Amino acid sequence: MAGSEVVLLDTWVSVFGMRVRIAFMEKGVHYERREEDLINKSPLLLQMNPVHKKIPVLIHHGKPICESNIIVQYIDETWQNKSPPLLPSDPYLRAQARFWADYIDKKIYDAGRKIWSTKLGEEQEKAKKEFIDCMKVLEGELGEKPYFMGESFGYVDIALVPFYCWFYAWEKFGNISIEKECPKLVAWAKRCMERESVSKTLPDPHKVSLISATTTTMFLTLCSELAKHPQMCCCYCLRGSIKPAPSNYLSSFTAPPFEFMSEKNKRARKWNCHCTPPPSAATVRTPITTTYCLLSLITVG
Amino acid sequence: MAGSEVVLLDTWVSVFGMRVRIAFMEKGVHYERREEDLINKSPLLLQMNPVHKKIPVLIHHGKPICESNIIVQYIDETWQNKSPPLLPSDPYLRAQARFWADYIDKKIYDAGRKIWSTKLGEEQEKAKKEFIDCMKVLEGELGEKPYFMGESFGYVDIALVPFYCWFYAWEKFGNISIEKECPKLVAWAKRCMERESVSKTLPDPHKVSLISATTTTMFLTLCSELAKHPQMCCCYCLRGSIKPAPSNYLSSFTAPPFEFMSEKNKRARKWNCHCTPPPSAATVRTPITTTYCLLSLITVG
Repeated sequence: MAGSEVVLLDTWVSVFGMRVRIAFMEKGVHYERREEDLINKSPLLLQMNPVHKKIPVLIHHGKPICESNIIVQYIDETWQNKSPPLLPSDPYLRAQARFWADYIDKKIYDAGRKIWSTKLGEEQEKAKKEFIDCMKVLEGELGEKPYFMGESFGYVDIALVPFYCWFYAWEKFGNISIEKECPKLVAWAKRCMERESVSKTLPDPHKVSLISATTTTMFLTLCSELAKHPQMCCCYCLRGSIKPAPSNYLSSFTAPPFEFMSEKNKRARKWNCHCTPPPSAATVRTPITTTYCLLSLITVG
Repeated sequence: MAGSEVVLLDTWVSVFGMRVRIAFMEKGVHYERREEDLINKSPLLLQMNPVHKKIPVLIHHGKPICESNIIVQYIDETWQNKSPPLLPSDPYLRAQARFWADYIDKKIYDAGRKIWSTKLGEEQEKAKKEFIDCMKVLEGELGEKPYFMGESFGYVDIALVPFYCWFYAWEKFGNISIEKECPKLVAWAKRCMERESVSKTLPDPHKVSLISATTTTMFLTLCSELAKHPQMCCCYCLRGSIKPAPSNYLSSFTAPPFEFMSEKNKRARKWNCHCTPPPSAATVRTPITTTYCLLSLITVG
């Protein structure tokens, strides 16, 4: 920890980690970001968040702050002299901001996840309806305002906008158009993406979609689409990072894409952004990973 | 709403509603409390909390604030000139307070509920272990401090202490001793009960246990114990309030005990605190209710 006053333990694909990154960038606070491998959690993470053992954890002067919305409030209160304020000063508006951030936490993650974790058919249709209903509640709350709390980008926007990088996956897996269902919400997300704090934080939706595929069919569909896509060579860096059980990619996902890896990890794993060497037998652990690597090779090579 | 600046929509048995009542009493804020019938929610509740349709809802100058922990923060920020402060002023300590209140929300209610909603045997043993583990995390956090945030009763205590009125039910249904497992936590709860705000808010644990019985066996066991208990005549006021399906008493629970009922309701339902008249065929709707009423009659009569 020496020399680092503000450290963020994070994982590149975490929407919760993204909230903290956006808040820091909005405030212009310099911090050190450490990518966590969620399969092999660092002793520091386990020490700093012994209760939940989850990222993100902000470590400020050696003391931990956990839970993304709590961290964002902490950032706003600690660096209150740095603009912009993230929460309004009026108690009623603060309560409203907290209510909507809480709603997003309670509803959107789970509702969205069900789209790709439920079986096709009636069950998935129900999950899709539930998800769209939640999104429409947010669409209704946003109304004609540019941002959730009015004219200024703030706490509720920060709580929700990271999910924008999951929109592509939700649309692909659920065969839905979020823009058609919630045009104001998509316009708002695009407005947020004009901010450097958001556009520089959110990862490529294509990469995000790959790790949320829960069946081989989903995965192959995505791969064949992504084969036409220039990012595919970077996706290839994910090889070997998917554990045998394909039931839960997000939690079984271990390695970040190349650009998020530390120099030490890059050397240790001998990965590079041109995706050589080709996958070895050791890294090819499942049929899905094999297909993945093969498709990557075709694309890259 | 005329004439009432501060209105709380609430249900007597709700631990979440209790938080708000305790916070108001700590701050010495006068408010009007309206008991909601959760089976027939009032148009006001549906209008004020259209998203979750849940109590508690604080209505201040006609504007709603929802979600108990958010309401408590709102009370602290709005009546900040009234002591005691409920949250600490230091941002780090505020973040810690929010973290523990959030932990209680995420863990205790569900873990506790599983004790009486799971089948006896391996499943219930697992639920009990999970519950005790959560409580021990809190016991560890409390340590030797008199209150969760140190010397002063505050936000985290308010978030947790309402659950103390469920301890009896958890112990009965789970055949556990919370005091044996978490002696510091029980000492803390008793310390909190010395405060008027807490002792005047928490309902009788025996009454609470009755509405959380999910099987006839559980219910009869409780009734036979309560038959020896002076409060039983008040429990009798609950008759007719349990819907036929015994799977979820808490949400199917419709009428508050006598002392929480409005004068209008008392007249409308012809209930009184001496538990006469005896139950009619119309109010006796299920075998459990019958037993309940009969036991009540035996006790009262």
